[in-house]
Amino acid sequence: MCICKYSISIAKNSGFCFGVKRAIKITLEAAEQYKKIQTIGPLIHNPQMVEKLKANGVNYVSSIDNVKSDSTVIIRSHGITKGAYKDLSDKKVKIIDATCPYVAKTQQFCKELSENGFQVVILGDRNHPEVVALESFVKSKAIIVSSAEELPHANYKKLGIISQTTQTFDKFSDLANKAIAMAKEVHVVNTICNATDIRQQCTLKLAEKSDIMIVIGGKNSSNTKMLAKISSSVVCTHHIETSDELDMKWFEGNHKIGITAGASTPDWIILDIYNKIIERLCGRNLQVADIEEIPGYKEE
Amino acid sequence: MCICKYSISIAKNSGFCFGVKRAIKITLEAAEQYKKIQTIGPLIHNPQMVEKLKANGVNYVSSIDNVKSDSTVIIRSHGITKGAYKDLSDKKVKIIDATCPYVAKTQQFCKELSENGFQVVILGDRNHPEVVALESFVKSKAIIVSSAEELPHANYKKLGIISQTTQTFDKFSDLANKAIAMAKEVHVVNTICNATDIRQQCTLKLAEKSDIMIVIGGKNSSNTKMLAKISSSVVCTHHIETSDELDMKWFEGNHKIGITAGASTPDWIILDIYNKIIERLCGRNLQVADIEEIPGYKEE
Repeated sequence: MCICKYSISIAKNSGFCFGVKRAIKITLEAAEQYKKIQTIGPLIHNPQMVEKLKANGVNYVSSIDNVKSDSTVIIRSHGITKGAYKDLSDKKVKIIDATCPYVAKTQQFCKELSENGFQVVILGDRNHPEVVALESFVKSKAIIVSSAEELPHANYKKLGIISQTTQTFDKFSDLANKAIAMAKEVHVVNTICNATDIRQQCTLKLAEKSDIMIVIGGKNSSNTKMLAKISSSVVCTHHIETSDELDMKWFEGNHKIGITAGASTPDWIILDIYNKIIERLCGRNLQVADIEEIPGYKEE
Repeated sequence: MCICKYSISIAKNSGFCFGVKRAIKITLEAAEQYKKIQTIGPLIHNPQMVEKLKANGVNYVSSIDNVKSDSTVIIRSHGITKGAYKDLSDKKVKIIDATCPYVAKTQQFCKELSENGFQVVILGDRNHPEVVALESFVKSKAIIVSSAEELPHANYKKLGIISQTTQTFDKFSDLANKAIAMAKEVHVVNTICNATDIRQQCTLKLAEKSDIMIVIGGKNSSNTKMLAKISSSVVCTHHIETSDELDMKWFEGNHKIGITAGASTPDWIILDIYNKIIERLCGRNLQVADIEEIPGYKEE
């Protein structure tokens, strides 16, 4: 919010999802306290963020074999397998678990369902680290499917249906429906994270009370393009990647400015654009250090 | 099976379902041992069967208030409410529980699901004694629906979906699908009894190896008409209610005779027709006292 005639708001739940934001926060806090921080795999597939973490002394290793015995190890939001956790424990390194709490809950469901005699079925990409980790929590062998069609025909007694957090509800619902026709007892846990849905809803909500919307994110990013589409259905919308693309003419007569961002956009890119607009329109820079300090922006 | 050129078989799972047959058997055995047998409600809505039970000293009462203190009480296949069971226990009468094991299992699911924090949803007829009894096993209040449309829209945390044993799978599946869209966690237990499906499958199986089929049951009985339809799709079929309708010309050149019966047909009506056919075709009566002694006929 600016004290001049312009008001600038950032849509709630813009950018990274809760689990990734949390893992980055945990990692940066750990970097202040410990040396030689290593993450198992990159925290997020965003080159600027990887660079920023590196500048803070955080490196990633692709395998536990490469973990140094005197390092502090961060488990990223996807989680790791039970076996990998044991290997880390055996190395006696300091472990900081930044597994997304939603993913950790899904791991727990895998464990409990299989312990209670349910054949666990996971909807997801079998090579994705989240799914690989989930599978390790299943006592017997899990069935991993990328769609309902892949569930083998059989007379199951008890099926437990869970999902990788990023799958769509339609695919999950199809799988659950098929399972109900195949088993006497089916326990369905909708473990899909609704970050994408919520991000879209918050974008629409802000667009509806704005004169103009700025959507930030890769021009090829499908989730960002969807945000731009939703926003442009109610108000004039510009989709940009960086502040270089800003054109001050856009804001002539458009005083209520809304900003939103796709799932791979780090907070500082959102902040940079927020500050550039304020600086150019109001002749000053708010020097906001943390996006969470901006009025109206708060994780829901 | 007859030793002459004719062979006569009764389809497995003809007539009454397993739960009703079991309750009648338990009741008739009790009638041999005890006096003043009372059942809570009629064992089955079949006037001939009610008469037969009466002749064996078995009467039914519509309310527990009418149970005499020196009587032996039979709980019929539908089961009774927890409260009614307690009232009977307080009367200190002898209780013989003939609740269908499938219904008893559904009662147990109602209890366990509600104890584990699930909002129990029962698909069924809210006035049917089976559903009234089921409801009493739910710790908190159950939601009873006759179709998916009746499930109130809300954000449920945990839903437990069960069904009256006689509902159709399509309706049950619709309800479960709707529940999955409304709750994070859904436990679906398919408590539908497949007696009808199995009766149809056994009828088809026998029809396929017969020259002629006799389908016994009310002319207006929809489940009997369905058996006749299935049978006539593969072989010449006659739908009759009693042995009076038998026409011996039907069997000329048709030596392999199959018999099946709808869900409301007592065994002795099936037996009467079986014996009449043997008597007239082979000139003798097998005097089979129990349908289960007939070769090929056995509960699956």
